Amino acid sequence: MADLATCAPLTPSSVRSAHNKIINHIHHTPLLTNRTLNSIASTPIRPDEKAPQIRLYFKCENAQRIGAFKARGAFHAVLRLIDELGLDEVRRRGLVTHSSGNHAQALALAGSTFDIPAHIVMPTISTPSKIAGTQAYTSHVRFSGSTSQEREAMVAEVMAETGAILVPPYDHPDIMLGQGTAGMEMEEQYLGTQGAKSEGFDAVVAPLGGGGLLSGTAIWYSDKPGTMVFGAEPNYQGGNDGEMGLKADPPRRIETVKTLTIADGLRTPVGKNPWGILTGGNSVKRKFVESVYSVTDDQIKAALKLVMERMKVFVEPSAVVPLAVILYNDEFRRMVAERQKEGEVWDVGVIFSGGNTTIEALIAMFGAGDGVQGEEGKRAEGVMGLDGKAVAENIAG
Amino acid sequence: MADLATCAPLTPSSVRSAHNKIINHIHHTPLLTNRTLNSIASTPIRPDEKAPQIRLYFKCENAQRIGAFKARGAFHAVLRLIDELGLDEVRRRGLVTHSSGNHAQALALAGSTFDIPAHIVMPTISTPSKIAGTQAYTSHVRFSGSTSQEREAMVAEVMAETGAILVPPYDHPDIMLGQGTAGMEMEEQYLGTQGAKSEGFDAVVAPLGGGGLLSGTAIWYSDKPGTMVFGAEPNYQGGNDGEMGLKADPPRRIETVKTLTIADGLRTPVGKNPWGILTGGNSVKRKFVESVYSVTDDQIKAALKLVMERMKVFVEPSAVVPLAVILYNDEFRRMVAERQKEGEVWDVGVIFSGGNTTIEALIAMFGAGDGVQGEEGKRAEGVMGLDGKAVAENIAG
Repeated sequence: MADLATCAPLTPSSVRSAHNKIINHIHHTPLLTNRTLNSIASTPIRPDEKAPQIRLYFKCENAQRIGAFKARGAFHAVLRLIDELGLDEVRRRGLVTHSSGNHAQALALAGSTFDIPAHIVMPTISTPSKIAGTQAYTSHVRFSGSTSQEREAMVAEVMAETGAILVPPYDHPDIMLGQGTAGMEMEEQYLGTQGAKSEGFDAVVAPLGGGGLLSGTAIWYSDKPGTMVFGAEPNYQGGNDGEMGLKADPPRRIETVKTLTIADGLRTPVGKNPWGILTGGNSVKRKFVESVYSVTDDQIKAALKLVMERMKVFVEPSAVVPLAVILYNDEFRRMVAERQKEGEVWDVGVIFSGGNTTIEALIAMFGAGDGVQGEEGKRAEGVMGLDGKAVAENIAG
Repeated sequence: MADLATCAPLTPSSVRSAHNKIINHIHHTPLLTNRTLNSIASTPIRPDEKAPQIRLYFKCENAQRIGAFKARGAFHAVLRLIDELGLDEVRRRGLVTHSSGNHAQALALAGSTFDIPAHIVMPTISTPSKIAGTQAYTSHVRFSGSTSQEREAMVAEVMAETGAILVPPYDHPDIMLGQGTAGMEMEEQYLGTQGAKSEGFDAVVAPLGGGGLLSGTAIWYSDKPGTMVFGAEPNYQGGNDGEMGLKADPPRRIETVKTLTIADGLRTPVGKNPWGILTGGNSVKRKFVESVYSVTDDQIKAALKLVMERMKVFVEPSAVVPLAVILYNDEFRRMVAERQKEGEVWDVGVIFSGGNTTIEALIAMFGAGDGVQGEEGKRAEGVMGLDGKAVAENIAG
């Protein structure tokens, strides 16, 4: 990666600069609304709940290149390297990363765009479609064991052999600033919408895995005191390391996570640089990130089913974790309801982080004929008759 | 329905009038492109094929109100009735139809919008989510047996009891003109796209069931000789009644179809009024509809998988039948390739008619762990590594 000393400060204007740099290489993804989901979010989940009143705006990064926001950070990181070292030098050395998922494809795409060799270390157990997706852009895929030690050993081997430059998936300012452009575009699109509040969103919720997307988004909103930024995590098998780490006294970053949550993009612990943002603040904004909430895998499945069947948008499980928090997390819902004045409705921006799943994966998740399991599953079915009115509207349209 | 004597002529300007009438009640759905699908469509399906060269534009009626284009025809039919009889009279008498699917929800929505009782006769075997979707708009759902005799008997009963006015799902000029607004919007959106051909699409492909959508679309393009209009049908168990009827010598409408194709929106025979368009033409355009092609259920499944996994768009099986024709029907592909000059690329508009399916239905279709079956299934898997570049771009964006 670019030397830390050359990195731009973690400020909104650096997010804008990152956006200017990558704009020709990324898709401007749509912002969608859906009345059915607004209605579900604003309806009590129990008879005694004072339901929050919420209008949702979904930033569809599943329609981003390679099917996920990761293209933003990868292009920004590579363009910064080219600025710093020159294209010839970067081409001579090449790029390397280890990833079984969206970052692998994103870096391979960025490399192929500038004719830079991109070495991708993937665990042999990666899903065939992700391996194929990565191999579409690079002939330098290497397979390793699945532990982080095995992957890192192979990355070190590649670096020693080729001099390739490591581009990590989230733990670097260039990546964070690149991912923050999703949060930035979302706000600009919202402000261009009829009926938008001139001070912007009341709240924004982003998924939290390694923390690139959440921290970048929080950086963009760090000079906007009217917009609170929240993180959303899966809590299966301790996948909510960010939430737990922030609740510890004093807060401390949890460095190891081992979870098989269906939100496979969020299985990693929060990285060091993103952690600094999660725990930071400034004079404009007390906290960059207000807090982090988590949900069960059943709640994620229920949200996934709603998004596909009601919004007609194909997303991966990690992408709907923020929506699951908004629909099913008691603590989040109570917090919003308590802050709302009578009659107040919050406009909430939600990032759908990606759409890289398959029908086979859905079958494995939902089982043959089992349908959605658990309480939220029942709720998801129950509400289908509530308000059939709204199907995805393109706000821009 | 409105008296036939009062119906507008089946011309492009009548489609435009229908659009003006319904515009405040329908969503302006997005037009999407996808490079991966362009690349697959333009790649030989066999080593010896001269592949057609195609750029695809998808009109996403899965994002229409109630999740399908049917909202267009229903609103147009109801607004025409109000014009003709007055709102009070229509309210006094009410509306009635029989449908197990999207038309039921569409008419219930249109009825509820104007506070007109809408009686919907649904077979008891209808899927629970469609019953719930319909009941969200009307309290007048009645259940009948599943044969057309049983359904029609109950409709007659409702009409005798209440004086309700029948709004059929496709076989009426008002419905056809309403559905044609999808084809009209699609062309306007295409012409506003960078790089569009000023003379419009080279071809448009719409699904063919009862024929409302295809005939309405063909009416819109009937004064545009540069755009050929094609229909697409499932051929499982004779679902391709339109194709077979047109190929008969002399052409004759097949009046009964009994198929359990997964394209459940296309199981009906072509209606009398749409049939007139299918076999008609005028001096501007030799034929309104050039011809109709059909595909197997395996080909429909392969196309469905591509649209969900690569475009990230959630559609129902009926919606992808046109794409399946473009990707897998030899006769269609040869016809395009033969008409193309060296280096020519056709811009082809495709209507994604709806998105009303469920994860449970996908599981039933694709089986537990079976994946896509048949040759096209293998092809769909095979091409996933071909070009991972493009993910849904919003052309307008």
